[in-house]
Amino acid sequence: MSKQTSKQPISATADATVNGIHMETLMGTVDAIAQEPELGQCRFRARNAWLGGNRNRTTITGFYGARQEIAHQQTFELHADEPPILAGNDAGANPVEHLLNALAACVTTSMVAHAAVRGIRIEALESELEGDIDLRGFLGLDASVPKGFTAIRVKFRVRSDADNMECLQRLTGFSPVLNTITQGANVAIEVEKM
Amino acid sequence: MSKQTSKQPISATADATVNGIHMETLMGTVDAIAQEPELGQCRFRARNAWLGGNRNRTTITGFYGARQEIAHQQTFELHADEPPILAGNDAGANPVEHLLNALAACVTTSMVAHAAVRGIRIEALESELEGDIDLRGFLGLDASVPKGFTAIRVKFRVRSDADNMECLQRLTGFSPVLNTITQGANVAIEVEKM
Repeated sequence: MSKQTSKQPISATADATVNGIHMETLMGTVDAIAQEPELGQCRFRARNAWLGGNRNRTTITGFYGARQEIAHQQTFELHADEPPILAGNDAGANPVEHLLNALAACVTTSMVAHAAVRGIRIEALESELEGDIDLRGFLGLDASVPKGFTAIRVKFRVRSDADNMECLQRLTGFSPVLNTITQGANVAIEVEKM
Repeated sequence: MSKQTSKQPISATADATVNGIHMETLMGTVDAIAQEPELGQCRFRARNAWLGGNRNRTTITGFYGARQEIAHQQTFELHADEPPILAGNDAGANPVEHLLNALAACVTTSMVAHAAVRGIRIEALESELEGDIDLRGFLGLDASVPKGFTAIRVKFRVRSDADNMECLQRLTGFSPVLNTITQGANVAIEVEKM
């Protein structure tokens, strides 16, 4: 059973992992969705509570996928605040830093998983991100200034064969968060009285 | 000393807070940037390290703003993983859930701060978010399927005067993360050998 042979063939056995990813599990999900596309429909969720001032807390407990509600094995809590210069107390990363985290995490995971499927071994991988925001937009000082990030730069350093770099660069393009940021998504917001 | 009565101008004093936000600090930043637009130029940053498999960790230590490097008062660490169905161990929220967190945190903060500037008091605020992703895109099973979120729904419940709801809905539009997702940002990615 040869799943793929690109670069280094993976001898998939019950416990075979590539880049630390259990290939039978990953390929099982891929095969299931390939055979039954509806299994790929996911709804990811978060709840957030304002804690006063610039502080708030997100709670994540589960999601919908593979035609069922799936609970995470633990509840994730994430905290946001602003630095003192933005009238906060630095009790958590600020929201736009959280966005950079989402982007870093997603491109990393996408690259590693797609590399594994192609038999590309990665020994180490790290990244640095920097994004530009002109606060005049957010603060409403100039309506012509964009309110969000205008440019984000991501530098990855990867320990892997030199001739894998071009392919790894291409694999970053599978990242859902990257695609959401570059392609945009519809966001519908309702505000109702409690 | 009347801090504000709903909708009326704020008489900022040294200790006046609205919605838990210290108004003199916030307005000081706003005024400084209004007078010297260059102070609004910010570069937010994150570093990420792959921890094997689907796990990775982001570290956030500071940013550039107001023409200087500003260190956070603590280092923030954020962890990402995938659930078992996606070949992970659920050691952290997954990247697209982190994106929902960023969005929730940002719209909440934007609404609360802009409400404060307008003298709108908010007693409580919470939100629920849900975003749709078809995994066939990420998994490369169908090139015509978008890889990112296609639609995200956000429901806010706010304890405030009923006639504030329409304004609060409008204030969500100041959120940098919301604008990044709906307007898009350029993301430049480099991959180099370690």
